[in-house]
Amino acid sequence: MKTSWIAADWGTSNLRLWAIGPEGEVSGRETSDAGMGGLTADGYEPALLALAEKYLGDGPTEVLICGMAGARQGWVEAPYGAVPCKPSGLAPVTAPTTDPRLSVRILPGVSQAEPADVMRGEETQVAGFLAGHPDFDGILCLPGTHSKWVHISAGEIVSFRTFMTGEIFSLLSSQSVLRHSLHDEGWDDAAFAEAAADAMSRPERMASSLFSLRAASLLTGLAPGTARARLSGTLIGLELAASRPYWLGQRVVLIGGPLLTQPYAKALSAQGVAPESHDGEHLALAGLTAARIALTGTAQ
Amino acid sequence: MKTSWIAADWGTSNLRLWAIGPEGEVSGRETSDAGMGGLTADGYEPALLALAEKYLGDGPTEVLICGMAGARQGWVEAPYGAVPCKPSGLAPVTAPTTDPRLSVRILPGVSQAEPADVMRGEETQVAGFLAGHPDFDGILCLPGTHSKWVHISAGEIVSFRTFMTGEIFSLLSSQSVLRHSLHDEGWDDAAFAEAAADAMSRPERMASSLFSLRAASLLTGLAPGTARARLSGTLIGLELAASRPYWLGQRVVLIGGPLLTQPYAKALSAQGVAPESHDGEHLALAGLTAARIALTGTAQ
Repeated sequence: MKTSWIAADWGTSNLRLWAIGPEGEVSGRETSDAGMGGLTADGYEPALLALAEKYLGDGPTEVLICGMAGARQGWVEAPYGAVPCKPSGLAPVTAPTTDPRLSVRILPGVSQAEPADVMRGEETQVAGFLAGHPDFDGILCLPGTHSKWVHISAGEIVSFRTFMTGEIFSLLSSQSVLRHSLHDEGWDDAAFAEAAADAMSRPERMASSLFSLRAASLLTGLAPGTARARLSGTLIGLELAASRPYWLGQRVVLIGGPLLTQPYAKALSAQGVAPESHDGEHLALAGLTAARIALTGTAQ
Repeated sequence: MKTSWIAADWGTSNLRLWAIGPEGEVSGRETSDAGMGGLTADGYEPALLALAEKYLGDGPTEVLICGMAGARQGWVEAPYGAVPCKPSGLAPVTAPTTDPRLSVRILPGVSQAEPADVMRGEETQVAGFLAGHPDFDGILCLPGTHSKWVHISAGEIVSFRTFMTGEIFSLLSSQSVLRHSLHDEGWDDAAFAEAAADAMSRPERMASSLFSLRAASLLTGLAPGTARARLSGTLIGLELAASRPYWLGQRVVLIGGPLLTQPYAKALSAQGVAPESHDGEHLALAGLTAARIALTGTAQ
């Protein structure tokens, strides 16, 4: 089976790639945990070959990559387009390779001068969304380790803000004193909604509300699933309090897997916002395909 | 040299003890990193002996301990006194020992039902402060991994709140994406003051302000010492925004070492509060001595 080109989303934690066949169809899909966070510059080509080798022919196959592989500590540094800009306005950069079967390019990220902010990878999901919704005017929210709120108008990213919500949740739930009180995967919808509402009205109480989870666990046996939902609600509520100028009275689309988008959808619904949700993986491939078309004139 | 008794402050990270001589004087001082966080129940007696053995005689020596050694995951669980209460109102509990030269008791902590909160160890520093200032009426603030704000009136703890400020600072500066931007021990007073003021006026922006440190480091080469000071200012400002009912218009005393208390003193001074500062280690020993007097009628 012949591979026309390879699309790859290379984030901090994972590498995901799609082999694209001669008709533009997805002929294979691979993932590994060889994320940028665990690689040095000379580790990228072997990590890519480990997943991609079976899709390569004798001649060079084009690989188009988005995400943290283009960071300063990545494979090769790709520039940032500065807002306001199209999500995929700049040319990709070529990554150094030794295997003649590889021809690798990495897509640029997007930056904002004030307030200082950057993204790498999310701009490609945004481009994928806009490829299917060229007239969209509104807000895209991409929850995750570093959640992004992106204001779109006339096909451009006007402004955006990043929140460390997912990373703070992960550190607090796995490494802080709260880990003793959150030791299962349970959940409590009502506790989530109440904590989100509390954090939106009194965001400054975050650091004391969180310690109360530990204290309530010791004093009254607070259920771990309730504590986990309250931690999530407190952090997402804090994010929604600060991102209010983005979502209030706006058309909001959530991009991501359901585990990430559902809590945001619930908390936003309580504020009278009814967001749509779109799958992020699908949009990453759509954005890489749009970049391929821009470069070669064809998705094949 | 004969030891009359041994005082010990056994926290999550460290064990600190003082040997007290026949005249009530400190005849020896020892510390180790055998904190409660790294011990199982059967590890306490050996860890204590490793520091205390040289001070023991043939008969049993009384050891009086405050702090996390009395937690549920500690040596033996000591109860909590419930506010409003004196900081050292309940009787200590006896810890199980096998060495006949040891007679060990652990002081209780203090709890609050609503909002749920607990302390173990800080109540002994509070007792030590009150031993020297029996008529104090006001606020004690003990910055640290889990900062405490304690309202004192008529010799009792009326209410208190814990903030996870120190633990969040530690996790973010050593394990989050911010670690790349904070890789030295530099400092920037002006950046600290500005970040603290910003966080007090817009506390909900915490999670996005922090990511901006990373973005500014990438885009404009923000100095690590400035980023570190802004991280500290943002988290302490958030704490001060929530603890305002404690400090606004109140007499405030900071308890702790200068590295912990100085940033709080600067941020409070900018709000028109002029806190005194007292050394926490000295007050822990004073509180243990007060407990010794309550138990035996003498500090010797």
